[in-house]
Amino acid sequence: MLSTTETADARGPQAPDAGSAPLSPTDRTRLRRGRHKQRADRAELYALLDEGLFCHLGVVVDGAPRVLPTAYGRVGDTLYLHGSTGARSLDTGGEVCVAVTLVDGLVLARSAFHHSVNHRSAVVYGRPRVVDDEDERTAGLRALTEQVAPGRWDAVRVPTRKEMAATRVLALSLAEASVKVRTGPPVDDEEDLALDVWAGVVPVRSVFGEPEPDPLLREGIGVPRHIAEHRSP
Amino acid sequence: MLSTTETADARGPQAPDAGSAPLSPTDRTRLRRGRHKQRADRAELYALLDEGLFCHLGVVVDGAPRVLPTAYGRVGDTLYLHGSTGARSLDTGGEVCVAVTLVDGLVLARSAFHHSVNHRSAVVYGRPRVVDDEDERTAGLRALTEQVAPGRWDAVRVPTRKEMAATRVLALSLAEASVKVRTGPPVDDEEDLALDVWAGVVPVRSVFGEPEPDPLLREGIGVPRHIAEHRSP
Repeated sequence: MLSTTETADARGPQAPDAGSAPLSPTDRTRLRRGRHKQRADRAELYALLDEGLFCHLGVVVDGAPRVLPTAYGRVGDTLYLHGSTGARSLDTGGEVCVAVTLVDGLVLARSAFHHSVNHRSAVVYGRPRVVDDEDERTAGLRALTEQVAPGRWDAVRVPTRKEMAATRVLALSLAEASVKVRTGPPVDDEEDLALDVWAGVVPVRSVFGEPEPDPLLREGIGVPRHIAEHRSP
Repeated sequence: MLSTTETADARGPQAPDAGSAPLSPTDRTRLRRGRHKQRADRAELYALLDEGLFCHLGVVVDGAPRVLPTAYGRVGDTLYLHGSTGARSLDTGGEVCVAVTLVDGLVLARSAFHHSVNHRSAVVYGRPRVVDDEDERTAGLRALTEQVAPGRWDAVRVPTRKEMAATRVLALSLAEASVKVRTGPPVDDEEDLALDVWAGVVPVRSVFGEPEPDPLLREGIGVPRHIAEHRSP
């Protein structure tokens, strides 16, 4: 399974600047346990983040953890998040942790102990910056929209001044990030290989169905190419 | 999108006991914003948790949030988590937050602002209890295994004493939990309905592929029924 045994545990020093730096520059993004493979290639981080549809954002509110599923978008080495200006969860001013997890398969071993999940997981730590510059705010919201459906931003009505004023845009550097990947068959104990138990992997994937038009859609508007060709199985 | 604008923000009082209590007993599990529907039915919480494959666990380590994808299992009103006895992340002794999120569709509106994601999301808050009783520890690990593949526990080698000793099992009450659901077409502004923009929902679902036998699988062991019939598309 996605076991907590396979996760970095130590708190590290401050992260260096992002840019072309390799991943895992701090102690807490370095894996301590487990057989899962840690990737050190920034391109793998980008690919994973670009494939994900949403993230889980961790914040601390009044000393307790809070985890929110939320949208994100990436521009270079920056992750953009957004929320209402009235939402307190994004108003903590403190550090956040963003996790994007893609599941690829159920790993069914001969022993309960060695069950696992094939997955790709990115975790980003940092203190987000509130974006004030209007151009960057627009670029961030564009990235958030494009994350859900590439090509969408140019096809829709862009935000009004009022909508922009109601939206907080946050920028999180990808400087301190880790990527963890588990692939392949189960890893059973040698002595269990003789057991009369089926073992293997059941692939899991996310697929997109036929687009369902809004009941209020005006007649004569067909499914645009950026949707029809998007994320097809 | 899964906007942070749609999430409860206030910290609440202590939660009452779980059992047959309705959901949302505290301020922080009560939704403050957005059009998404909050569910108050405990059966919906169970159904969502039973459908999920893994959760995102939020903890606070040295004052900073940490989010880990990890396995879970449910028995009644208790969620079980596990990890290595050496993993520091589960050793905080403090509160945790567990989120299980299922994505059902991309909500493509006529305006960028009203884009969203149809989803079902459960969030559980609490202070997990380290399980000492061996029977409950076994029941918890059984639930964790069955979550990934129902029927699996009875088909595999159960944990040895040594494996049990290396595993920490935690129990988290479902007393303080919320369920949030967004369904249906986009909700555009009235004046945008006339725009020449396609709007609607692209369904998203998780599907399971053909089981891939472990290369080390002994000859003559076919895919068992509990796998073949499991989570078929």
